[in-house]
Amino acid sequence: EFTVEEGKLWLLQTRVGKRTSLAEWVIAYDMVQEGLIDEATAVRDRLTAGKLDELFKPIIQAELKDAKEPVAKGLNASPGAAVGKAVFTADDAHEWAEKGEKVILVRRETNPDDYHGMVASQGILTSAGGTNSHAAVVARGEGIPAVCGAESIRIDRKAKKLSVKGTEVKEGDWLTIDGTDGTVYAEELETEPSVLEAAILGESEARRSKLWKAYERFMKVADKQRRLRVRANADTPEQSRNARERGAQGIGLCRTEHMFLGEERAAAVRQMILADNEADEQKAYDVLEPLQKQDFLGIFEAMDGLPVTVRLLDPPLHEFLPDHTELSVEVALAEARVVKLKKKELEEKKELLAKVDELREANPMLGLRGVRLGIFKPGLYAMQVRAIADAAAELKQKGKDPRPEIMIPLVVTAEELQQMREELEPVVERILRDAGVDLHVEFGTMIELPRAAVCAGEIAEHADFFSFGTNDLSQTAFGFSRDDIGGFLGLYEERKLLPANPFATIDEPGVGRLMDIAVNEGRAANGNLHLGICGEHGGDPESVVFCDRIGLDYVSCSPFRVPVARLASAQAVMGEATTSSR
Amino acid sequence: EFTVEEGKLWLLQTRVGKRTSLAEWVIAYDMVQEGLIDEATAVRDRLTAGKLDELFKPIIQAELKDAKEPVAKGLNASPGAAVGKAVFTADDAHEWAEKGEKVILVRRETNPDDYHGMVASQGILTSAGGTNSHAAVVARGEGIPAVCGAESIRIDRKAKKLSVKGTEVKEGDWLTIDGTDGTVYAEELETEPSVLEAAILGESEARRSKLWKAYERFMKVADKQRRLRVRANADTPEQSRNARERGAQGIGLCRTEHMFLGEERAAAVRQMILADNEADEQKAYDVLEPLQKQDFLGIFEAMDGLPVTVRLLDPPLHEFLPDHTELSVEVALAEARVVKLKKKELEEKKELLAKVDELREANPMLGLRGVRLGIFKPGLYAMQVRAIADAAAELKQKGKDPRPEIMIPLVVTAEELQQMREELEPVVERILRDAGVDLHVEFGTMIELPRAAVCAGEIAEHADFFSFGTNDLSQTAFGFSRDDIGGFLGLYEERKLLPANPFATIDEPGVGRLMDIAVNEGRAANGNLHLGICGEHGGDPESVVFCDRIGLDYVSCSPFRVPVARLASAQAVMGEATTSSR
Repeated sequence: EFTVEEGKLWLLQTRVGKRTSLAEWVIAYDMVQEGLIDEATAVRDRLTAGKLDELFKPIIQAELKDAKEPVAKGLNASPGAAVGKAVFTADDAHEWAEKGEKVILVRRETNPDDYHGMVASQGILTSAGGTNSHAAVVARGEGIPAVCGAESIRIDRKAKKLSVKGTEVKEGDWLTIDGTDGTVYAEELETEPSVLEAAILGESEARRSKLWKAYERFMKVADKQRRLRVRANADTPEQSRNARERGAQGIGLCRTEHMFLGEERAAAVRQMILADNEADEQKAYDVLEPLQKQDFLGIFEAMDGLPVTVRLLDPPLHEFLPDHTELSVEVALAEARVVKLKKKELEEKKELLAKVDELREANPMLGLRGVRLGIFKPGLYAMQVRAIADAAAELKQKGKDPRPEIMIPLVVTAEELQQMREELEPVVERILRDAGVDLHVEFGTMIELPRAAVCAGEIAEHADFFSFGTNDLSQTAFGFSRDDIGGFLGLYEERKLLPANPFATIDEPGVGRLMDIAVNEGRAANGNLHLGICGEHGGDPESVVFCDRIGLDYVSCSPFRVPVARLASAQAVMGEATTSSR
Repeated sequence: EFTVEEGKLWLLQTRVGKRTSLAEWVIAYDMVQEGLIDEATAVRDRLTAGKLDELFKPIIQAELKDAKEPVAKGLNASPGAAVGKAVFTADDAHEWAEKGEKVILVRRETNPDDYHGMVASQGILTSAGGTNSHAAVVARGEGIPAVCGAESIRIDRKAKKLSVKGTEVKEGDWLTIDGTDGTVYAEELETEPSVLEAAILGESEARRSKLWKAYERFMKVADKQRRLRVRANADTPEQSRNARERGAQGIGLCRTEHMFLGEERAAAVRQMILADNEADEQKAYDVLEPLQKQDFLGIFEAMDGLPVTVRLLDPPLHEFLPDHTELSVEVALAEARVVKLKKKELEEKKELLAKVDELREANPMLGLRGVRLGIFKPGLYAMQVRAIADAAAELKQKGKDPRPEIMIPLVVTAEELQQMREELEPVVERILRDAGVDLHVEFGTMIELPRAAVCAGEIAEHADFFSFGTNDLSQTAFGFSRDDIGGFLGLYEERKLLPANPFATIDEPGVGRLMDIAVNEGRAANGNLHLGICGEHGGDPESVVFCDRIGLDYVSCSPFRVPVARLASAQAVMGEATTSSR
């Protein structure tokens, strides 16, 4: 707003022009080129770290985007464009995807039971819920485009269709969603990969674009400025390469759960769980060890020369067995002869049910998992550690530079880490000695329980490193099970009962304070301790600034948020930062 | 050991004579009477607080105890003698008890699923597990005599019998156990109430006994010395009277769960849970409110003149509905026509199953419970608060002196308490004003989550009091679900992975530190704040000493441990204390 009065131009009111992430980078680049601002100013003040990941997502072709009219608009819950056939249940999403179909999962809201269908979908569309709803949080975490809370859409789940403004979309009909601006199209629109993605893959046209030039120039400045190193959470060679291409300086969290899954391994894993003596258990480990060694070979090769923090098995064992209720129903129906089973099959099912029953827990998050598993099943961690050390030794012999770090999860007393280390370190040393290679393998722990945080001084005496597992630390500090609070988190946000969603941004007064205690007392007890974070907060700009402030050495986040973390940690050092995540 | 050499008597070695709790008190009394020690020395150094509760338990008649030979000996896991018929499953214990039989539950080990049978039993006998096994911890918590780890006993669960040294005990045969010394008798032995118990009930012979005189004299000294007040955890008028007789100075925790149970209330509670609109929900509250008012009338009358801290409803709603697996099996069998149900009945069951499914949680301990319920079901806490205020107003009008304090459980942010208080305080004030009575009702919160502890300063601004819920605080700080860690807690203790059982004695470096932070920062923010503890640790002598040291105002424990806490808190003040709990 302005007025001209007595020959003078008065600016009555100004407001910040809303720019897309693309515009931010291009404008900043032009201004630097024209000498209006310097590079540091551009990086510090003109770029929004929290929106950088948008630039890596596919977009709807520009001419189509201009020409087409959306049928609905919701919240831009997770950036990127996605095209697929409409499905209305998570099970359908999962099944259709298995058959090779690209699907958009349409739901009123999602809940944890829908996870398998969500991750199988190209995109997610909900008619209810905000940008912190279950659908939105999962979608962002998994890098899946999502539009949430598109309230004009009426979903008829039973009839498997939606209707909006007179248009009807039935199961199997095409949908296109744009999670960057929240638009929904009832047709199949052509998308194109993002310019940055194409440039990273080496496409020459993309490499000539102004956006890529801006990205290269400013990220170089950011990397020079930042103090924090940036690692990625990656579990496979594929994810590791992906992370490395985006500038990851190592893997901060390599989960090993998936190494216990898959047809080839299922029988051995079941044997490992059901075994009632050590010899049977060992047979299972003998099957798993060479397979897991192959897994580690691939990951260490992809990350050659960079550290890879491997977390030993964490989830409770019953996650590898059938669901208790389903199995109970199966057995009951078989016993009533409704379902015909051979006597032997029924006996086996009953035996399995007895084991599932035995392992069933009231609160599995607080049960037999993490280091407790390592103590309860002594051969398990030893097998994993052998596979790691064997893989590293083999690569080292070939002249490669593997840098594994072994991480024990869920430690809560110093003695747990001490005893595990006493058991496992000699296993590693023997393998390396036998292979004749010289390699230092660090042992450390997650700090993910409040008691571990306040007793960090004692624990640090037995640790080479700490990695803050802020997902579990937030769950236990708040007493919030992420799987369960979906039902009331919305109400909490609406009524401002929480300062912010503690699973998106680190809760500084509570969880942050526990971290601060652990950093100070851990370092005081062990000057060589190095510290990182591998919870999802590691990719949230506000949380990255906090991690910089309390003096962590690195943050680790999902691969596609690595550039976000690189920029945010530079802005943390440079002061005055534009880091809001959305 | 001694020797006489060159006419001199040399004491080579001495050891402390092991005395029973009874002997401790009587010897100390005699020594004071003879002027060998003074009263303070007796109370400070000669009495073991942790063993005082033994003196309140029934004992086997002295002449029988001398004459009879035990068939087995195990660990003295929970003091007192118990007589009953042997049963071998928790379900049998429960059923037999319902029919009016006195039973001893015999198991190899117990687990949380056995709870209903354990509390229905006179005593518990296990052949495995130590003094911190599930059976032992529950038995002590509930005041049920128990002998654990009687390893010479062979239990045949299927045949429902045990055999030991050639003796066989079948289901329904008599057993007597003595949890004070760990002995087991394969017959029905006569027991007698403890002298102290009889004296408290006014029996004149007991009142003339030396033990009672010692108890009266020394507890008077203890009460004069101690700084901590001692309250009890009691949920009914009966328990309240019991607590008062043992010297409780109020109720620190009155749980309200049981006010939602019982035939008369079950239908209303189900309606409250299943209601899909506020009008239906309100109808349920209208049924429950007058019944709950009666409950509070009884408790406030029993505790006339003393504070009663009422905890609003805490457990998740699905605890009031059928088990998910059982209901799923029922529905599956009915649908397969194995079990014949009328169409309408089946529909109802299916509807109920849908609701149970909806409310089912992955980790109920960290789900929709405590204050979250109060926020989610706005009418619920208002109904409870009306019942409390109505009962208090009625008694006040009759010239009585009710002192209710309203406690909101599971608070984790200041805003939760602030908003609940803003909703509920006017409800109380209106009722008291309408009744024309002058009464100050305090509002406070449990501190039972780590975040609440480190953010206590903010929370204290909205609280009149804090009560440490150290059960849940220990569960979340350690990430230990009490229901689930039974399986590995034994292994942890064996391998010294834990300093002590954190559910028996407060873990000072972890949980204790969180408490200390909350005390200091809570008091700094609100000088009028009063502070107590209502976890089971409130009756553990070592924990009582810790609570004294960090400056709590009171401890609250189960009624039969009130004398223990009175003595322990005196010893805490007097220094050099003999407080070990066992």
